[in-house]
Amino acid sequence: MANYNKRIRYKNKWRNIKVGESPGTIAIPDDAVKPRIAVFSFNQTDLQISEGSDFKTITQQIKKCTEHTHWIKINGLGDAALIESIGSLLNINHLVLEDVVNTHQRPKFDEYDDYVFGTSRIIYFNKKDEMVNCQFSALVKDNLIISFEERHYNYFGVVEARLQAGKGSIRTAGPGYIFYALTDTILDNYFVLLGNLGDQIDQTEDRLYKSPDKTIMFEAQQLKRMLIAIRRACWPERDKINDMIRSENALITKEVKVYLRDAYDHCIQAMDLIESYKEVTSSLIDLYLSMVSNRMNEIMKVLTIISVIFIPLTFIAGIYGMNFSREDTHGHVISDNMPELYLHHGYIYALILMLAIGIIQLIIFWRKGWFNKL
Amino acid sequence: MANYNKRIRYKNKWRNIKVGESPGTIAIPDDAVKPRIAVFSFNQTDLQISEGSDFKTITQQIKKCTEHTHWIKINGLGDAALIESIGSLLNINHLVLEDVVNTHQRPKFDEYDDYVFGTSRIIYFNKKDEMVNCQFSALVKDNLIISFEERHYNYFGVVEARLQAGKGSIRTAGPGYIFYALTDTILDNYFVLLGNLGDQIDQTEDRLYKSPDKTIMFEAQQLKRMLIAIRRACWPERDKINDMIRSENALITKEVKVYLRDAYDHCIQAMDLIESYKEVTSSLIDLYLSMVSNRMNEIMKVLTIISVIFIPLTFIAGIYGMNFSREDTHGHVISDNMPELYLHHGYIYALILMLAIGIIQLIIFWRKGWFNKL
Amino acid sequence: MANYNKRIRYKNKWRNIKVGESPGTIAIPDDAVKPRIAVFSFNQTDLQISEGSDFKTITQQIKKCTEHTHWIKINGLGDAALIESIGSLLNINHLVLEDVVNTHQRPKFDEYDDYVFGTSRIIYFNKKDEMVNCQFSALVKDNLIISFEERHYNYFGVVEARLQAGKGSIRTAGPGYIFYALTDTILDNYFVLLGNLGDQIDQTEDRLYKSPDKTIMFEAQQLKRMLIAIRRACWPERDKINDMIRSENALITKEVKVYLRDAYDHCIQAMDLIESYKEVTSSLIDLYLSMVSNRMNEIMKVLTIISVIFIPLTFIAGIYGMNFSREDTHGHVISDNMPELYLHHGYIYALILMLAIGIIQLIIFWRKGWFNKL
Amino acid sequence: MANYNKRIRYKNKWRNIKVGESPGTIAIPDDAVKPRIAVFSFNQTDLQISEGSDFKTITQQIKKCTEHTHWIKINGLGDAALIESIGSLLNINHLVLEDVVNTHQRPKFDEYDDYVFGTSRIIYFNKKDEMVNCQFSALVKDNLIISFEERHYNYFGVVEARLQAGKGSIRTAGPGYIFYALTDTILDNYFVLLGNLGDQIDQTEDRLYKSPDKTIMFEAQQLKRMLIAIRRACWPERDKINDMIRSENALITKEVKVYLRDAYDHCIQAMDLIESYKEVTSSLIDLYLSMVSNRMNEIMKVLTIISVIFIPLTFIAGIYGMNFSREDTHGHVISDNMPELYLHHGYIYALILMLAIGIIQLIIFWRKGWFNKL
Amino acid sequence: MANYNKRIRYKNKWRNIKVGESPGTIAIPDDAVKPRIAVFSFNQTDLQISEGSDFKTITQQIKKCTEHTHWIKINGLGDAALIESIGSLLNINHLVLEDVVNTHQRPKFDEYDDYVFGTSRIIYFNKKDEMVNCQFSALVKDNLIISFEERHYNYFGVVEARLQAGKGSIRTAGPGYIFYALTDTILDNYFVLLGNLGDQIDQTEDRLYKSPDKTIMFEAQQLKRMLIAIRRACWPERDKINDMIRSENALITKEVKVYLRDAYDHCIQAMDLIESYKEVTSSLIDLYLSMVSNRMNEIMKVLTIISVIFIPLTFIAGIYGMNFSREDTHGHVISDNMPELYLHHGYIYALILMLAIGIIQLIIFWRKGWFNKL
Repeated sequence: MANYNKRIRYKNKWRNIKVGESPGTIAIPDDAVKPRIAVFSFNQTDLQISEGSDFKTITQQIKKCTEHTHWIKINGLGDAALIESIGSLLNINHLVLEDVVNTHQRPKFDEYDDYVFGTSRIIYFNKKDEMVNCQFSALVKDNLIISFEERHYNYFGVVEARLQAGKGSIRTAGPGYIFYALTDTILDNYFVLLGNLGDQIDQTEDRLYKSPDKTIMFEAQQLKRMLIAIRRACWPERDKINDMIRSENALITKEVKVYLRDAYDHCIQAMDLIESYKEVTSSLIDLYLSMVSNRMNEIMKVLTIISVIFIPLTFIAGIYGMNFSREDTHGHVISDNMPELYLHHGYIYALILMLAIGIIQLIIFWRKGWFNKL
Repeated sequence: MANYNKRIRYKNKWRNIKVGESPGTIAIPDDAVKPRIAVFSFNQTDLQISEGSDFKTITQQIKKCTEHTHWIKINGLGDAALIESIGSLLNINHLVLEDVVNTHQRPKFDEYDDYVFGTSRIIYFNKKDEMVNCQFSALVKDNLIISFEERHYNYFGVVEARLQAGKGSIRTAGPGYIFYALTDTILDNYFVLLGNLGDQIDQTEDRLYKSPDKTIMFEAQQLKRMLIAIRRACWPERDKINDMIRSENALITKEVKVYLRDAYDHCIQAMDLIESYKEVTSSLIDLYLSMVSNRMNEIMKVLTIISVIFIPLTFIAGIYGMNFSREDTHGHVISDNMPELYLHHGYIYALILMLAIGIIQLIIFWRKGWFNKL
Repeated sequence: MANYNKRIRYKNKWRNIKVGESPGTIAIPDDAVKPRIAVFSFNQTDLQISEGSDFKTITQQIKKCTEHTHWIKINGLGDAALIESIGSLLNINHLVLEDVVNTHQRPKFDEYDDYVFGTSRIIYFNKKDEMVNCQFSALVKDNLIISFEERHYNYFGVVEARLQAGKGSIRTAGPGYIFYALTDTILDNYFVLLGNLGDQIDQTEDRLYKSPDKTIMFEAQQLKRMLIAIRRACWPERDKINDMIRSENALITKEVKVYLRDAYDHCIQAMDLIESYKEVTSSLIDLYLSMVSNRMNEIMKVLTIISVIFIPLTFIAGIYGMNFSREDTHGHVISDNMPELYLHHGYIYALILMLAIGIIQLIIFWRKGWFNKL
Repeated sequence: MANYNKRIRYKNKWRNIKVGESPGTIAIPDDAVKPRIAVFSFNQTDLQISEGSDFKTITQQIKKCTEHTHWIKINGLGDAALIESIGSLLNINHLVLEDVVNTHQRPKFDEYDDYVFGTSRIIYFNKKDEMVNCQFSALVKDNLIISFEERHYNYFGVVEARLQAGKGSIRTAGPGYIFYALTDTILDNYFVLLGNLGDQIDQTEDRLYKSPDKTIMFEAQQLKRMLIAIRRACWPERDKINDMIRSENALITKEVKVYLRDAYDHCIQAMDLIESYKEVTSSLIDLYLSMVSNRMNEIMKVLTIISVIFIPLTFIAGIYGMNFSREDTHGHVISDNMPELYLHHGYIYALILMLAIGIIQLIIFWRKGWFNKL
Repeated sequence: MANYNKRIRYKNKWRNIKVGESPGTIAIPDDAVKPRIAVFSFNQTDLQISEGSDFKTITQQIKKCTEHTHWIKINGLGDAALIESIGSLLNINHLVLEDVVNTHQRPKFDEYDDYVFGTSRIIYFNKKDEMVNCQFSALVKDNLIISFEERHYNYFGVVEARLQAGKGSIRTAGPGYIFYALTDTILDNYFVLLGNLGDQIDQTEDRLYKSPDKTIMFEAQQLKRMLIAIRRACWPERDKINDMIRSENALITKEVKVYLRDAYDHCIQAMDLIESYKEVTSSLIDLYLSMVSNRMNEIMKVLTIISVIFIPLTFIAGIYGMNFSREDTHGHVISDNMPELYLHHGYIYALILMLAIGIIQLIIFWRKGWFNKL
């Protein structure tokens, strides 16, 4: 029943929509967490990291290393002033800033005159084993990439590690490559998620074959819903990557596009896998329902066979339990009523009659194939 | 059961279709409400509002402020003369006027030589908690926008408030921006509606897990139907916005198109959400039906176990209730009939036999796994 | 049950297909009705109508008014000679004439060098309340339009009335406008049909909520099938109108195209409505089936509760109805058998035992929630 | 049950696939029938027919009439040498010859430098009422058309008859027209097939309404499967005809294309019909299943009403059949046990009690609406 | 039940995904088998084969025969060094090498400057009758083709045999033709697989008609899942072949493209077959479920008929088994209680009453059509 905890709730999800508000308004949701900022400034030989929680962390680091590429990593969106400051520092359209804080965006890729902007969905299971579906967005301009994550969860540790190791082209291929690396990490995590769901499908199927019970239906529905959630994240991701590949913006270099093509293939693989898993999950539900039907059938057969055999027998016993054959006042039996009772061996004959009826019925049932397993 | 009130009825919906009527005929439906008119005339520094219910309200205000942008807001379509007057004032095609009063249009955007015309669906829950699906249409020409709403319900109060506040570009970006602002308000309201439906889905699901009863099926069907209604409004809205973005008409300025692109994204998000909700609702129905099946299964098992155990026992009791072992006229028992009855401890033996049969059956059922929860 | 009469039959529908016949053969179906001809000759000021049933009616009228526009309205296709004569008079391709008499065409629009040809489906309920799906086709050439209807049913009375009234551009916009007017009348009638079906859906739904019975399933299936029939007519109609709008033939004037665009919108609205109705009808069927399931569940619960309570009680009564405690020949009871029978107040104790068992079972069922309404 | 014979079997269908074989290998299936050859040589005034079973028949006839158009009609593919000879005579690609003998091709149209090739599916019911799905292919080159049919069944008798009659353009329009005529005959036969299936659907539906039994399910599934088989043949046929219309090859003359456009319309009509029939068949299955459900419901109701009424009554009878009220050894009743038995009119009171219980239960059931027809 | 062994498991399938790893990393899965290498060097007259398991085998053979075409066949991917060596020898992009060892690629065809790369899915049943779905990939550059198979299973023996036979163009048409031949072998094997599944569908259907039992549901689900697996392999294969046909790379010669077009047709045929089989399998499941329903119905009918007939009879027997008609202390019957018992022939009357009730009920059931087979 642990799966019930993973239930995805729809309540409160769209609470921060203010009807008719002026477009471009930066409305921080009430449950947004305070930002944590890390700035990675690097070139082929050097990597500097500075951490903090306000705008100064960013400006100081950028001023210090003017020749480096910067990855400004912001976890938590609960500070409107910070977002505004970044917006005015880089001269970003207010509609983009609104998309950063309205954390229900579909994955998309938008190009502007001198910067590009993209969003994705980060999906993971938190410590309580609940599925969390939060937003990632990134802005690339000049030698800068600013990534915004909705939560503090350290999702991109692997990219940081690769940056510190400094192998491959990660330090030299510019901020567009960092954008690709983050996107690819998200996609890889979809496969990890799908791997987990695949394991759960296997377990559910094992239980279905070995000891089916009614929680299977709930589990299968949970699995299906998670697959739907991942599909909602993955499907527009494909379009987004495609838009990036087709983009003619200099920030997405030719080298990055080669890698993006690889990511595109991964994305289609994930879609493929999701569709397969959905079909398998549906067939588990069908199988389960047919097993319930069969079980019912079997129960009914047992009930029917036993009832139908004994009901006539009990009726006969009832007949000979009737009190018609009373003696008259002198103790003489009134012999024309129920003469069977006065038969020599009448009891034995009655038992034989019952046995015969029972056996005949068994033969009829056997002929009808009721002892086969339908 | 409150949801039954929200039932969408199809009766009378198409009553004002007159077969073969000349196109462009302005036929006011019988249940149309009388118009209320409000004219907002504004420029960057000034906002004048005049209200009324006849054509004079409009003409006076337009003559007074020739340099202003005008938003003429008409709630209620029950005055054919008014529509005709507006049509001849602005020189509008009769087919357009017909679309204004035939309130079953799909959302669409039509361009004409010197004006543009668009329709949308306004959906809200009225005070009786019924879903109302009425028509919004708007005409933009020169420095004018005329919006037509089917009901008196004050749907665009937020836009009026923004106009009075005068922040952003709402007073300066022309009538096309007002058109965008109204469209965006409609979209925002779809999210609010979907938020409400999401809450209801959550509640229905909670009830399904905690105390399922047969109203769940009705509720789920109601939810599904409302989602279908919103989808019917939202899907062509997407095409409409797209047509507006692609339009080369000067009334839809470049600045407005940037905002429309944002609205387009919102529209796709809403579609996405609707599809997800529909899938979730369907899975609720499946879950409920499987719970009904399981419940039936359980009931049948109880019936079968109890029946099958007691039927043979009752039969045995019936046997020994037969009157075969009668005494003869001298009071001597005819001993070859039912000798068991005259056995010492025969009663105890019979009880033991019954107990044994009962226990054997229980063991058989246990082995068959009937005490497991399928 | 009146709906059963509306059943659509597939028998005999394709009887007039002759395999491998030479293309362009005019094979009149056996059940074709004799033609009735009406010729409307009109210009802005004048309208002449002449009626008849043979080719002469047409030629006389055409010769008389050479400057007029002519609408030749033919109801009934049961006269091959007439069709042939028209074909040779106007120099029409034999394949076209074949399409006129083979009354199972999909709606389509074909252009030829100097004439255009289109077909549509006329759908209406006849006096027996059966759905009739027959063919309309029309040929436009020069200043002539010839319309062919399969039946005598007066479907285009409204267009005749508009022609007699002479308002709008109906008398002046040429034969292409008449073609539009006829097509639009067909579309308007689809809405009327859909309005009727919508009423029936409402009624069926009302009955489902108030007094469901098994005819609902039949009705829902009938409704679904009628919707499918209308969809089959409406879907290609959309393509046909689109082809007319895109046509560069001079017979479809620019003025007519404006109206056709309006008709195109109506066609999409009808499609929309059909899809919605189909979804609603399907959900009615689902609801009904779930109600049947629930009803079954309830019946089984009543049966099970009563059976399970009384079966053990009847067994106990059976026990104490056994004849083990017989007196010996001297009238002395053999006291070690069934001593309960000789207990003081034994009967009361037995009744109390039974009552206790019954109450305990009720408590168990109550705890299991069987008295809740699943 | 006759329909069971029509079961389509999948066994052995793909037996003549040799994995990894060199492409263009002419592998005759084991069950191929020996070819029968007929050569029709004709021009406007003359028609010569020669029949045989080997290659000589063809060459002699072609040499004899060099100015005629030839239709070489081959029924049966069981002679690899013949196919090879034809291939080398006309200089045909081996891949094409392979397609001729591999009789599981989808309908298609291939163009080569100086010849065209097409395949279709011939579907008919044989004498045993089994559905036969075999291959037709045709090669058109210069003034020749060679048609290959898999079986001896005389499918194109109607085309032969038209050729002998010599009306229309069949003798003058070249081999491309013959190709069209054969394709059109196949399409016409699809309509005949569909007409038959439509009749069967009607019959099955009649039986469903009048005397439903469980063979209906089998029949409906058979019908569905046949519709799927025809659809598999018809769908690519549409693409094939479209390819022919678009072909720029001189063998498909402009005149033929006019007729092909007509055939294209027929093909779409057939598709339309198939989809409708599939929907109707599915709805028959749904109706049948709901009738089974309803029947079950009714049966359960009868069982429950009778059981529930009589079980308590039988219990009461059981109570008063208990032997508690025994007389003591002196014949005196022990009066504190079961005093009801000694009541004056006790028996009548007991009967009245039972009657009352029965009536009360009937009232309860009636109030619950169990006597309504759900 | 043998089919259970064929169950496709999802566990561990995506274990070798390392989140956020640098792209182009060659991570050999733990369960990869050691490579076996065979190099086929051939020209029109000569064929040399050398086998081994390390990189030397390849380089030696290539150096020896510089004018030959080489097919390097590698079975097993468990040697990262080998893959790396081949990559550096031929100057291959690391992303391609990664695709070779990540054995969950979708079929695809990628073109690079001087080489092309393609993947496919090899599907076969191993000795344990389990479905194995492993990866095939091939690199074509200059006069070389390197094929990588995931397992040691000898899948392409037929191509080797054709190479040794040397007929047709296999030795002369270059490495692109070998690529085609391998792809075509894979497709042919799909048909063999589908042939097997077709046989199984036939067997399952036979069992469904003759002796249905509950394993049919499992089998049908297994079949469906295998069809889904093959479809997942076959669908992108079509795109791959299409990409190859459209490729302008010189490695795919015009001659090869003719054959590829043939392969494309086969691929579509396979898709067609898969869809048909899926529909048939679904209809088997539907049929089975309806048979279960019918069986249930029949069982319930037997139970109900027997119960409903005997319950009232047993009740009557119970009535006359009551002990109301006791004698008083003097042996006189208290005659106002149960006078029926003292009737002359009362027993016979009672039996006749019972018989009458039974017969009436049978007539009622017969009238209701319960003895018909629904």
